[in-house]
Amino acid sequence: MDTRLKGDFTLPGEAGYEKLTLELAEKWGADVIRDSDGTKLSPEIAEAGYRIYSTICIIREHNAFAAAHPDAQQQCFLSSDPVTAEGEVLEISPLQGYFTEQFEVNDTPEALAYWEVRDRTAGCPVPRENWQWADGKVKVSGCTPWHRYTVSFLCWRIWEEINMYNHTTNHWTSEHLRQLDPRHPEAWEYLKGWLENWCRENPQTNVVRLTSLFYNFVWIFGEDLRRRTRFVDWGSYDFTVSPAALKAFEAEYGYALTAEDFIHQGRLQATHRIPTAHKRDYMDFIQRFVAEKAKVLVEIIHKYGKQAYVFYDDSWVGMEPWGRYFASVGFDGLIKCVFSGFECRLCAGAEAPVHELRFHPYLFPVGLGGLPTFMEGGHPEKDAMDYWLHVRRALLRQTVDRIGLGGYLHLTLDQPAFVETIARMADEFRRIKALHGEGAPAELPVRVAVVHTWGSLRSWTLSGHFHETDANILIHINEALSGLPVSVKFIDFAQAKSGALADCDVLINAGRAGDAWSGGDAWKDPELQAAVTRFVHDGGCLIGAGEPTAAEGGDTFLALAGLFGVDVDDGAYACHMPWSFETEAAPFEVCREALTPKPGVRVIDPETKVWAAEGDTPTMTCRTFGKGKAVYLSGFRYSPAAAAMLLRLLRSVTGCSGEAAAVSADSRVECAWFPASHALVLLNNAEEPVTAEITWPEGKKAFALEPLETRFV
Amino acid sequence: MDTRLKGDFTLPGEAGYEKLTLELAEKWGADVIRDSDGTKLSPEIAEAGYRIYSTICIIREHNAFAAAHPDAQQQCFLSSDPVTAEGEVLEISPLQGYFTEQFEVNDTPEALAYWEVRDRTAGCPVPRENWQWADGKVKVSGCTPWHRYTVSFLCWRIWEEINMYNHTTNHWTSEHLRQLDPRHPEAWEYLKGWLENWCRENPQTNVVRLTSLFYNFVWIFGEDLRRRTRFVDWGSYDFTVSPAALKAFEAEYGYALTAEDFIHQGRLQATHRIPTAHKRDYMDFIQRFVAEKAKVLVEIIHKYGKQAYVFYDDSWVGMEPWGRYFASVGFDGLIKCVFSGFECRLCAGAEAPVHELRFHPYLFPVGLGGLPTFMEGGHPEKDAMDYWLHVRRALLRQTVDRIGLGGYLHLTLDQPAFVETIARMADEFRRIKALHGEGAPAELPVRVAVVHTWGSLRSWTLSGHFHETDANILIHINEALSGLPVSVKFIDFAQAKSGALADCDVLINAGRAGDAWSGGDAWKDPELQAAVTRFVHDGGCLIGAGEPTAAEGGDTFLALAGLFGVDVDDGAYACHMPWSFETEAAPFEVCREALTPKPGVRVIDPETKVWAAEGDTPTMTCRTFGKGKAVYLSGFRYSPAAAAMLLRLLRSVTGCSGEAAAVSADSRVECAWFPASHALVLLNNAEEPVTAEITWPEGKKAFALEPLETRFV
Repeated sequence: MDTRLKGDFTLPGEAGYEKLTLELAEKWGADVIRDSDGTKLSPEIAEAGYRIYSTICIIREHNAFAAAHPDAQQQCFLSSDPVTAEGEVLEISPLQGYFTEQFEVNDTPEALAYWEVRDRTAGCPVPRENWQWADGKVKVSGCTPWHRYTVSFLCWRIWEEINMYNHTTNHWTSEHLRQLDPRHPEAWEYLKGWLENWCRENPQTNVVRLTSLFYNFVWIFGEDLRRRTRFVDWGSYDFTVSPAALKAFEAEYGYALTAEDFIHQGRLQATHRIPTAHKRDYMDFIQRFVAEKAKVLVEIIHKYGKQAYVFYDDSWVGMEPWGRYFASVGFDGLIKCVFSGFECRLCAGAEAPVHELRFHPYLFPVGLGGLPTFMEGGHPEKDAMDYWLHVRRALLRQTVDRIGLGGYLHLTLDQPAFVETIARMADEFRRIKALHGEGAPAELPVRVAVVHTWGSLRSWTLSGHFHETDANILIHINEALSGLPVSVKFIDFAQAKSGALADCDVLINAGRAGDAWSGGDAWKDPELQAAVTRFVHDGGCLIGAGEPTAAEGGDTFLALAGLFGVDVDDGAYACHMPWSFETEAAPFEVCREALTPKPGVRVIDPETKVWAAEGDTPTMTCRTFGKGKAVYLSGFRYSPAAAAMLLRLLRSVTGCSGEAAAVSADSRVECAWFPASHALVLLNNAEEPVTAEITWPEGKKAFALEPLETRFV
Repeated sequence: MDTRLKGDFTLPGEAGYEKLTLELAEKWGADVIRDSDGTKLSPEIAEAGYRIYSTICIIREHNAFAAAHPDAQQQCFLSSDPVTAEGEVLEISPLQGYFTEQFEVNDTPEALAYWEVRDRTAGCPVPRENWQWADGKVKVSGCTPWHRYTVSFLCWRIWEEINMYNHTTNHWTSEHLRQLDPRHPEAWEYLKGWLENWCRENPQTNVVRLTSLFYNFVWIFGEDLRRRTRFVDWGSYDFTVSPAALKAFEAEYGYALTAEDFIHQGRLQATHRIPTAHKRDYMDFIQRFVAEKAKVLVEIIHKYGKQAYVFYDDSWVGMEPWGRYFASVGFDGLIKCVFSGFECRLCAGAEAPVHELRFHPYLFPVGLGGLPTFMEGGHPEKDAMDYWLHVRRALLRQTVDRIGLGGYLHLTLDQPAFVETIARMADEFRRIKALHGEGAPAELPVRVAVVHTWGSLRSWTLSGHFHETDANILIHINEALSGLPVSVKFIDFAQAKSGALADCDVLINAGRAGDAWSGGDAWKDPELQAAVTRFVHDGGCLIGAGEPTAAEGGDTFLALAGLFGVDVDDGAYACHMPWSFETEAAPFEVCREALTPKPGVRVIDPETKVWAAEGDTPTMTCRTFGKGKAVYLSGFRYSPAAAAMLLRLLRSVTGCSGEAAAVSADSRVECAWFPASHALVLLNNAEEPVTAEITWPEGKKAFALEPLETRFV
């Protein structure tokens, strides 16, 4: 590469490594230097002419205030594990089994009013007069012997969870950091004053990098190391709860939430599950609260002539970038850490002036999964390249404005390969961004809508990173879509019923029966079934994966089994024989490795074409209905080859020739055509050299690519 | 063997093969000669001094009467496949896709009154005024576009299903046999007269072998050979339906059954599924009808000095030997065909004066599964031995009175190995029977109750033969239990709640969520949960296999997950971590091959002991509660080794030393101790020689057994 672009790169500086900081800033073309959790910038760095980002975790690092105002700490509901009554009385220690360094019972009168004892066997609450809290135990009387009882209770969260995680993982010995609830009036006043003061005292800072806002995602530790993490849900709102929040909710909504709205039989309404109406109300309530408070902070920051960027992770809850209140906060930038392509699209597509990606690996001895990165046994350059392979294909479709790294810069000292890899990656990013600047890349005329319970609120992501959700088929599909030259939107079921299908060619529903992604009870709705049936009849394509459209109580397991011509036997097909079938060649090359077989899948219509099968189990089928098609995939596992197959499938079912954009004849190579620049970008996803024939609006040619190469033509 | 016992053997005679018949009668020690479906006895055989069984299928072989009285033919409800409305009107051809040689639409006014058109998308019936039957089609108006519609209709069954099966399988060209409904008054009078006449004309017959009674199990053929059998359920009552039956039911029960009671969303209420209350009423109604009518036939047979044995297969419906009306019929004997041990116990334990087993293979060129038996490629002696291995171990626990064969005797002409095998088997049977005659075999003090929806009505069997139901975990357990020296009973959930657990040591629940064997909604009942919890606390053992106690709506997937300390994740555990575990040595030898792993099984209690696992998935666990235990098996696949493990498990959880009976130290060898005879019987289930140490109340010794040997000591 001859012409090296510069800038759009955020470098983590480190005091004590001033020379290294400035060298790498030059090498990687940085225009911004930031601090990180655990690092500081020295004046030498801060005054070197770079823009400066400073990281603030607004609710943390106020232990003195927390000690003086313990009631300003954050809270949550927990449920004891069920205890079986052997007689008519029973004692339950609510916190038993929970990590007592994280939680402390909140038995203030206003909290106790929300406590609840439940008979889980009978599925009903125990009357208040039948239990009392004394001596650290809940004593229940009038029990039905052999029923199981639980106590739902409020507790203080006395250890900020990210700090707790770092402590327990890395054996830190520093003070446990606490966290304040901005809903607490004195805490809120204190936090605003603290931020004003901080801004005053840090004139060199150009950008306050908020990490993030107020409420962390839910992470519940257990005392026993055999189940240290009891529950972790990146999308849960359960750490926003307090009596004050519940009272404010009741005042506004006219009904009271109870412990059971959160505890939900001990299942805690995970994001992957279908939310109750109460939970939806509560989420909206919190989203508005978070946006209002964040707006105040942003205004303070602006008052001091600084910009406010927000990092979307950790204490992000209530601040979904695709949520309806995000734009109202007035952030100047959104920063997203990325492992995957879908995270890139999540960031790039959000409504914010500046979109920045923080790349992985974080400059830290171990990675998120606990494996070595910047220490013996680690290969950070390989990790970086691995993530880049996911991200670059998404950037090709929609770019962000900036990229960067985080962590301890000195860890790169013995990693020349890593330093080179990042340099190359930063250059490639800048070239991709420049192309986008000249004009958008060509897209195929294929409009995809992914439908699930959360709709656009959870565009691209499910609940956290790929590796945290990879048991869900949809994240594999989202990851594949993130790098395809098609248009993609995320809609909910109400939208699917009311016109959102009119401007789409392909509707995707992928999940497990009863989960938020498949949709569960939503599919009981005849209007929804009819809308999708009509969509297909009129020429649309429905792609279902896993247990799409599954709803209880119907005459089939998948509500639209008749449309797919396949169904899943959960036992209800007892004594009914499926149609025998012969596999037919699909009109495109099938990537069998992508199609995880699923026991119980059966053909229920003689017109169903089976495009792939494992033994007696179809793994990919297609049924024509009217002018459209319904395609079923038993599973879908992301890989570049799987993504290439998905593109072939999308083109096949929409009859899209591919003339409008660039198309690769080889599954290992992806490509994009930028018409304004007359530029072609080719990505070799394979670790071997590949010669691939590329067809684009202005030509057709075979290109020989190096392993993993990004080629700008 | 020196002393050869004789008798208790029913030989199928064949006209034209008189010499062979009499030779084999001698060789196999027969005391009875029978005809079979398709064979006749000649006077030479009939007068040779043997007792004679004559086979009658009472409702078949009356084509002339059926032609003259087509309305006396049997009927059933069928449902058309769903058809999607593309507008407001729709036409449905009800029989489309069904085998038109089996069914004919019944559109008489009284039948049409039961027809129903349903909107399957909305889950409701279409008003009668919105559809009409004309020109062989149902024309529906006022449809909601894009909804799916079905027609439920009555039809005549114009081909007796066993005859149809033999015809279509063996390419017969003879006339299709029809079947009469004994509920039709003229048909019933005709049938009684026909039987009187038959008895008069067949003075040589000692035993009328009824094959069987009136209504066949349900077997629905499709037109398309890709799904020739659409539905087959050995336990379904759907072929008993007629307007007359429905009217009689309504008159007695005070409410009317509708088509949907049978069609049940097209699923037809298979025996493996949980019956509705209406279906239970209807089954009782039919059972009483069948018993009353059968009693009349038996009385006619008795009037002519003959005995009436009933063969429990084919047209058996309503005549369950463990049903409450069976004994009232007054049969002189019950004959059961057997492939398996559980079928032997089903027969042996029924209330009847004589129990007879008809062995497999049937003397027919091909077996039930379509593979060659008495033709090139067949090994009938191996088949016979294979079935005998299953049956002999059950006979060792509870004997029947007689055994026999069926079919075309001449097929044995070139099969000397088969002839020898049967001779040896018959001798072994007679020796086992003789031992039972001297006194019952010793049993361990282990009382097992198997609990499921059907309770004692479906003791031992699920719905048909092993190979038809082997996807159900319970049939594997029943087969194992059939040969174990423990007491076994089958109870329903109402019994489990009301005292039936008091006299049992082990309760087994094994099935799939929502099926009749696991129990589904029954487990929502807090009383049932409490009764079983208490049973375990007081020292009982609950063994659950597959998805035991699974019920929807609870806080766990398995209602008693807390008792087992394991649960199955159907997605509701999203974000909840299971307990990690180490596998601990079980207090007995585990047969891992028997334990099919099941995805989603997780440990939910730190006290749960994992006795076996595949990767991260426990396959066998045990949790102590009070004085008892709850054991979970993810799967169970029958084999002699699996049965041996089940015995070890039963002994372990009940603390049974085994001193009361005979116990083998080798999994391949089973044994029984007959205290009255001071006799030990040893069965080597292995195809290799085994030396096994046997411990019995009077000694302990190692015995060297030949492959597959039955040793009488």
